[in-house]
Amino acid sequence: MIISGPSGVGKGTVCRHLMLVRQKLNLSVSTTTRPPRPGEEEGREYNFTSVDRFKEMIGSGDFLEWAVVHGHYYGTLKTTVRNYLSKGEDLILEIDVQGAAQVRKNSPGSALIFLAPPSLEALEARIRGRGTEDDLRIKQRLVAAREEMEAYYLYDYVVVNDQVENAAGLIGAIIDAEKCKVNRGVRPPGWGGVE
Amino acid sequence: MIISGPSGVGKGTVCRHLMLVRQKLNLSVSTTTRPPRPGEEEGREYNFTSVDRFKEMIGSGDFLEWAVVHGHYYGTLKTTVRNYLSKGEDLILEIDVQGAAQVRKNSPGSALIFLAPPSLEALEARIRGRGTEDDLRIKQRLVAAREEMEAYYLYDYVVVNDQVENAAGLIGAIIDAEKCKVNRGVRPPGWGGVE
Repeated sequence: MIISGPSGVGKGTVCRHLMLVRQKLNLSVSTTTRPPRPGEEEGREYNFTSVDRFKEMIGSGDFLEWAVVHGHYYGTLKTTVRNYLSKGEDLILEIDVQGAAQVRKNSPGSALIFLAPPSLEALEARIRGRGTEDDLRIKQRLVAAREEMEAYYLYDYVVVNDQVENAAGLIGAIIDAEKCKVNRGVRPPGWGGVE
Repeated sequence: MIISGPSGVGKGTVCRHLMLVRQKLNLSVSTTTRPPRPGEEEGREYNFTSVDRFKEMIGSGDFLEWAVVHGHYYGTLKTTVRNYLSKGEDLILEIDVQGAAQVRKNSPGSALIFLAPPSLEALEARIRGRGTEDDLRIKQRLVAAREEMEAYYLYDYVVVNDQVENAAGLIGAIIDAEKCKVNRGVRPPGWGGVE
């Protein structure tokens, strides 16, 4: 289950709310070279690392997906994903649009959700409200967000983040629905017929 | 949204529960030549009609789907479906396995849900518990149910009717999820890009 969308749309907030209200759901912790924001903790929001170490891991083929966003590297380690899936647990990857395209190509079984802002104006207000970046950075983010919005058609679902609770509820519904899909190998109980 | 599954699995009960807990959801009333069971009302569970009239309507091309199940005709009128869809409302068709295959062919936009019993033993207990049919009829139903179970792979989703509330909850999730699907034409709000 991939949750993606333009920078600043509120992916992190929605994912954390989802973790609170659902059981047996895991949020993949990405690796990044971006410096921690106030309140972020190593191993909780991200694994923070250096650019040199990140490049080494790319060279070793350690990443399921990685991307450069606003000058920083972000990536998901293959080992993280394998650990959860081998236990049969659900895993959410909260990744950017470039990364989502790679996962789509590498993991055809994944369901991709595009988290969209109620409007571009609302997105701008949210990015400015965060107050962690200067005006130039904010403008770069907004230009990038407009481009990222174009990528929605690569996704399976569009969920609008008007209210965190609504968006998390719809994503929960999508997880439940995906787990009933016949083309994911779901069979009636006691099914013993010829496939 | 099509809900189907073997005879006796509890389609009617699950659909009625779903109507109680969700808004703006309509249950299509089918037309049948089967005599009313105790407690059933004309126009609520079914439109009851004669075999001659039913055959006339087949001849006029009035049905989106129709089938003969256990010696009785059942069908969904095209006008019923058109009325709801033109109002932009959700419509559930509760139909048998033969009918579902016809809708799949005629309405590619529909989502098909196969309601499965927790086991064949549970299905038998449910049909016997209904107490409206003699032993020969019950045996015919069970033979038919085994065949109908084979058809699950024609559907998009399998939902197990272990508890009415659980099954209705999952079907509700599937309705919510389907309404977020990009391939149903869902776009981010204010989307003005080139399609």
